[in-house]
Amino acid sequence: MTPDEFRRAGHALVEWIAAYRERLAEGGFPVQAQVAPGELIGRLPAAAPEKGEPIDAILADLDRLILPGITHWQHPRFFGYFPSGGSLTSVLGDMVSTGLGVIGLNWQASPALTELEQVTTDWLRDLLGLSQAFSGVIQDTASAASFVALVCARERATDYGAARTGLQGGTAPLVVYTSAQAHSSVEKAALLAGFGRRHVRAIALDAAFRMDVPALEAAIREDRAAGLRPCAVVATTGTTATTAMDPIAAIAAVARREELWLHVDGAMGGSAMLLPECRHHWAGIEAADSIVVNPHKWLTIAFDCSLYLVRDPEHLVRVMSTNPSYLQTAVDTQVRNYRDWGIPLGRRFRALKLWLTLREQGAEAIRARLRRDLANAQWLASEVDAAPHWRAVAPVVLQTVCVRHEPPGLDGAALDAHARRWTQAVNDSGAAYLTPAVVAGQWITRVSIGAELTEARHVAELWQLMRGAAEVSAAAG
Amino acid sequence: MTPDEFRRAGHALVEWIAAYRERLAEGGFPVQAQVAPGELIGRLPAAAPEKGEPIDAILADLDRLILPGITHWQHPRFFGYFPSGGSLTSVLGDMVSTGLGVIGLNWQASPALTELEQVTTDWLRDLLGLSQAFSGVIQDTASAASFVALVCARERATDYGAARTGLQGGTAPLVVYTSAQAHSSVEKAALLAGFGRRHVRAIALDAAFRMDVPALEAAIREDRAAGLRPCAVVATTGTTATTAMDPIAAIAAVARREELWLHVDGAMGGSAMLLPECRHHWAGIEAADSIVVNPHKWLTIAFDCSLYLVRDPEHLVRVMSTNPSYLQTAVDTQVRNYRDWGIPLGRRFRALKLWLTLREQGAEAIRARLRRDLANAQWLASEVDAAPHWRAVAPVVLQTVCVRHEPPGLDGAALDAHARRWTQAVNDSGAAYLTPAVVAGQWITRVSIGAELTEARHVAELWQLMRGAAEVSAAAG
Repeated sequence: MTPDEFRRAGHALVEWIAAYRERLAEGGFPVQAQVAPGELIGRLPAAAPEKGEPIDAILADLDRLILPGITHWQHPRFFGYFPSGGSLTSVLGDMVSTGLGVIGLNWQASPALTELEQVTTDWLRDLLGLSQAFSGVIQDTASAASFVALVCARERATDYGAARTGLQGGTAPLVVYTSAQAHSSVEKAALLAGFGRRHVRAIALDAAFRMDVPALEAAIREDRAAGLRPCAVVATTGTTATTAMDPIAAIAAVARREELWLHVDGAMGGSAMLLPECRHHWAGIEAADSIVVNPHKWLTIAFDCSLYLVRDPEHLVRVMSTNPSYLQTAVDTQVRNYRDWGIPLGRRFRALKLWLTLREQGAEAIRARLRRDLANAQWLASEVDAAPHWRAVAPVVLQTVCVRHEPPGLDGAALDAHARRWTQAVNDSGAAYLTPAVVAGQWITRVSIGAELTEARHVAELWQLMRGAAEVSAAAG
Repeated sequence: MTPDEFRRAGHALVEWIAAYRERLAEGGFPVQAQVAPGELIGRLPAAAPEKGEPIDAILADLDRLILPGITHWQHPRFFGYFPSGGSLTSVLGDMVSTGLGVIGLNWQASPALTELEQVTTDWLRDLLGLSQAFSGVIQDTASAASFVALVCARERATDYGAARTGLQGGTAPLVVYTSAQAHSSVEKAALLAGFGRRHVRAIALDAAFRMDVPALEAAIREDRAAGLRPCAVVATTGTTATTAMDPIAAIAAVARREELWLHVDGAMGGSAMLLPECRHHWAGIEAADSIVVNPHKWLTIAFDCSLYLVRDPEHLVRVMSTNPSYLQTAVDTQVRNYRDWGIPLGRRFRALKLWLTLREQGAEAIRARLRRDLANAQWLASEVDAAPHWRAVAPVVLQTVCVRHEPPGLDGAALDAHARRWTQAVNDSGAAYLTPAVVAGQWITRVSIGAELTEARHVAELWQLMRGAAEVSAAAG
């Protein structure tokens, strides 16, 4: 494709994206894709074409084939999972990155890629109210960041055992602690890093779904008594199901005393720390060894952009470093080589979308948007509290409201079935999208507020939909 | 940013990218960034702005601040590292992905994301001449794919030990085998997965820098005799330094006999298998347990897009799976949930760029481009062979030519210094970009041909530059 062909198709695509977002803003499209499994596969040829096809025909297929299979995360009535970053400014930033087509293997391979990442991760760290003791890098996801954290914990506990026998030295097993409401990626990270599920403790919760610190201390005591070696604790700032806030200061005191690595998973909730009034939620955070916050969630940065902050970058680099001849340059001692800050050697120029978005929006507007979402969540929580047979099953700490409709005459498994039935009815209707989840052993419904386009009226519309669907389901159940 | 503001800025950016590529095609820009460490950092403010800034001012900074810090991988005289995918069609595909702003947590979260990935990875598998015994997924990089492969090997050898004590059970250590010319990411993957460096064997090479199979067999014998458990062998199709081809069939026979996982790293060289005349280079490939090929290298797909192929997806899913309540849907048994095929839970819609590019270019044109690059490499090799005091230090198997200039009167360390000096002189001149590397204990210069814009004349120009720089350096040395 020549630059002129790109001009024509690129302009068409800019119009297509703008029109797509306009239609979303108007509430167009069913939020959840209305296709059956295999439907798109059945409509596509079994082999790549031998001859090139005209770009216009391919772009037309975006409407014909792709859009029907999209669940619209940027829709104002998308309340599923988490708010997924997709601001149009960050779309522009990503266009520049892909348009340049450079790879950050080392500083020399594109100095701007490294230095803009260094500067924008510093900007974000400061906006989060953290001290300059932390240094940042962009990872793809919190899954990867938490894995890197646990490997760093493993290597600190073993005095860089990876350089010798790894975890295969037959020494006393290392143990990882996290809460029973930690994200699934934490256990996955521990298993990938070789700890083994028997050495991962899901610590019990208090009534607000926060890690119970006495239970953590008891588990550590038991493990030490059994000859195991406590290694790391992963605390969560904003758990997936209910955005519960583990008590960082108390956990940090335990970590310090027991010499554990403290990793804080603030993938979702960390963004709230742009608001000074929220920072009490992670009081004690300065004691963390590592923190992850995902700007690609609530901060509207296009996926993927996960901020990983560490107190000791030298340790990180020593753990992750490789230094083959073909990557060495004359300036290696003067610069950051971010390849040694994570898993992949090749790296996209992801700082561009962060830079464009922070500059175009400005910190004030970002904070205002976060406050809008917090207020919308509080409004919904108060409506739920006031409505007969509805209850919020967890404190509404941030922008997520976990609800249950408990009509008279239903209990146990029937109530669980009811919760899943009315939630799926809302999703299947295409009018809004919610996530069912299990909290405290019961199926509940998560309402995650914070898509960029979601205003108060969309939350009000959702509340109407929820009540309607629950009534129909209750009558059927 | 509103859709209308996006229209204005987006159209401007399309023009900017097109103009950038036009200037590259004309040979504009010094290939290597001409900035000093810290230069960009010094020109950026220390904090994010409180108030939003006009998008025009930000876009103007792309020329003022960013472009001077870019090493231009898409430049026709970029011969460094590897050809980095950046076709304008794939830029369009990535725009669509970012514009849609959806995340592939599971099938339901955007069915088209999953199904297009399934179809396009099948297309690629077939284009590579592989059988339908393989199933594909897009990973970000070969670093991640090789890590996943070694974790899968570990879990097969331990009968899913991660569900129990991981590598901390005190049993006989598992060992990983690869060649002394394997990519640095292979050892890194083994260390991340907990094997430990003492359990990674860098098998010796034959004269063509391929893994020496008798040496592999001897190492396995020794390890078994020492009470260790051979677990996996990583063979390379196209090593980083010289694109050497490990003998897959012979290695596969050993792997089968010894019950080792066979992972084939074809990150760079695998793309050549689109050409039937190249497939003898990985004869025996059907016996592999896993293969990685990076379309984001020589196949012009914008980074990141790494194809990971496995024979046993059920095993992969069992190893990588997490299944928290909030990710479960009613159709989970009927669909692929790609989150269980790799590390990250969140996934970009990367299949779009693959789909657009394969369709717009067509397989014939892709093959023609690969053949162009192979021919250019052969031409350069023949020039090198014919020139006094120049030699190719390794067989030219694909598009990489490894050369050394050995003028009379220089040897040992002086020759090494000469190699690094003239290579850096070429890079510093901005006229072309090369990678110095160590092969067989000596510093040599890699010429990696295959940027999309690189035609025969650019290789001829490079050859002139090389000879000029080497002459100057020899006179100085």
